Amino acid sequence: MLYKITEKIFQLEQKGEKIYKMNIGEPDWPSIPEAVDAAKKALDEGKTKYASAQGEKELLQLAAKMHKCDTKNVIVSTGSKWAIFSAIYLNVKPDEEVIVFSPHWTAFELMIKQAGAKPVIIDLKFEDKWAIDLEFLKSKIGPKTKMIILNNPVNPTSHAWSEKVEQGIIEIAKEKRVLVLLDTAYRGLAFDKMKDPVYDENVIIAYSFAKPFGMTGWRLGHTCANEEIVKKMMKFNQITLTNTPVFIQAAGIEMLKQRDSLGKKAVEYCKERAKVAMEIFDKGGMEYTKPKAGFYLFPKLNRSGIEVANELLDKYKIAVVPGAAFGNYDRFVRISLCYSGKTLEGIMEKIVEVSKCKLQ
Amino acid sequence: MLYKITEKIFQLEQKGEKIYKMNIGEPDWPSIPEAVDAAKKALDEGKTKYASAQGEKELLQLAAKMHKCDTKNVIVSTGSKWAIFSAIYLNVKPDEEVIVFSPHWTAFELMIKQAGAKPVIIDLKFEDKWAIDLEFLKSKIGPKTKMIILNNPVNPTSHAWSEKVEQGIIEIAKEKRVLVLLDTAYRGLAFDKMKDPVYDENVIIAYSFAKPFGMTGWRLGHTCANEEIVKKMMKFNQITLTNTPVFIQAAGIEMLKQRDSLGKKAVEYCKERAKVAMEIFDKGGMEYTKPKAGFYLFPKLNRSGIEVANELLDKYKIAVVPGAAFGNYDRFVRISLCYSGKTLEGIMEKIVEVSKCKLQ
Repeated sequence: MLYKITEKIFQLEQKGEKIYKMNIGEPDWPSIPEAVDAAKKALDEGKTKYASAQGEKELLQLAAKMHKCDTKNVIVSTGSKWAIFSAIYLNVKPDEEVIVFSPHWTAFELMIKQAGAKPVIIDLKFEDKWAIDLEFLKSKIGPKTKMIILNNPVNPTSHAWSEKVEQGIIEIAKEKRVLVLLDTAYRGLAFDKMKDPVYDENVIIAYSFAKPFGMTGWRLGHTCANEEIVKKMMKFNQITLTNTPVFIQAAGIEMLKQRDSLGKKAVEYCKERAKVAMEIFDKGGMEYTKPKAGFYLFPKLNRSGIEVANELLDKYKIAVVPGAAFGNYDRFVRISLCYSGKTLEGIMEKIVEVSKCKLQ
Repeated sequence: MLYKITEKIFQLEQKGEKIYKMNIGEPDWPSIPEAVDAAKKALDEGKTKYASAQGEKELLQLAAKMHKCDTKNVIVSTGSKWAIFSAIYLNVKPDEEVIVFSPHWTAFELMIKQAGAKPVIIDLKFEDKWAIDLEFLKSKIGPKTKMIILNNPVNPTSHAWSEKVEQGIIEIAKEKRVLVLLDTAYRGLAFDKMKDPVYDENVIIAYSFAKPFGMTGWRLGHTCANEEIVKKMMKFNQITLTNTPVFIQAAGIEMLKQRDSLGKKAVEYCKERAKVAMEIFDKGGMEYTKPKAGFYLFPKLNRSGIEVANELLDKYKIAVVPGAAFGNYDRFVRISLCYSGKTLEGIMEKIVEVSKCKLQ
């Protein structure tokens, strides 16, 4: 289904059609100039050699400061997707179980299956505003449960759980001797600033430079975990990737040094777009939960998201992702707010129209 | 052992110690300026977004031309180590066997074990000048054999087998329905030019940009294989690395476009260094096989390579790798000719001295 839509977009683009790609998890703003400058400077300085499989000292120190831990508890990752894949692959054995809250990022499930393990999906409800029931979570933890994945804020809903809920999950996991994999990719885009998660022995924190700094294609992230896990990841890097290019890490160092000031712009972009989109959704009587971070809207429809996605593509060349790509959410679509201003307004109006909700 | 030493030396250096790093598979010359320029240009052009998990079209076309195949038979890899890891991980099941000629690059064995498979090591002999006995190879192929790894030219010996031997191995493998993983990392540094390997349905060719273009830390390579394998690798990239940064691929495109002219310099460096090193070895009465490519020497010692390596590090801050890191070769060390001129001469003399072979 997702493949069919992707293929359709590919064919249309090859025909020279202009597609509004509201389907991809990538903002349209460029990499922050300071990142580009830092990488170019490092290239000029010859920072192009083999390097530590753990990462550059300065980047490790900055990451350790974020999570209030020692540098031995952090490792640079070639993208936070690599951090997440490694965390699952190296810690979960075949036939063990991993709990995932749904709607969820497709990759989690694929990675768990790649490791030969079993995803245990907990379907959250739109009607409950995506609330997590901690007692229900407890009841799903069994002897085979090895890990709970928490993506906070969430792709695709842009919901964010409170610190209290997050900590509650970590405490339950600790009690049950289960790992928590905390994917914080969208945390830097939270509309109300969220605290950096703090090191804990049973938590694996994955951090991404992609979204807040427009560095999607750079493949840079880091992981914070207990020393044993970091060591395993380092050994795995040694036989897979060697190191993340130092000139890319140099950009990451600049970003973390000036995180508060450089990260602001992306949050402002996201807030502005969410405002524009929500106004049109409200006018059109669309049902959705208010985004708390990032650039996704995940509205509830009164018919199949696959139908809506196909119609939007055929009629208006607007690509969105059917909710079914994120779990048992057929009556939803995920919309990436990848444009701004009048273009975004126009697109959102078409989405409302096709979703069969009349504009007032 | 190899990676323990490498990491230890990175740490010593971060403490400010000056080490003569004759241990790493990395030449001291910088990345080719054309590579740096191409990457900087691409960064300026905003080539920093998510991209195809297979790779940039132009790079795929250049790679396909090298191996006389279609672009559907090639995929860009985040370093050729990643190509090799993926090739093993995705094609060899637990308990299957992979044949490796020894002395061998440590990573092969670790990768095979990581996949839960069994390395079947064929020990080649210094006295035979590392010759491969094809009949013996045949006898080692059993029902569990899934793959033969051929690193040609070889790390650590710098030996290169003829096209005839290489083709002989491929033919035997084809007959027995076994894959050949052909690691060509040092091919661009052959003293007598070697042909690019040509696509074959049972061969997985791993190509590296690291050595000929001084691009070690960039993590760029490509793989040529049958379509089914390429598709598996692409899917694996989608859940692990997403894409190799496009601005890095831009450098690769420039390198392949001007491969003959840009690759020459590194070969000249290697030849010159081999000459300097061999003169001192010959004068000191060291036993070694003449290198045919690259920048390694793998002399035979009259005592343990671990002893020699430790003594060199303690006494002269010279790091080399004990032969035991490459298999059953305790009485050897691997020396990377990572310096030139008088520095190289001085280091080689110390190595001869510590190896207990008196200078004439």
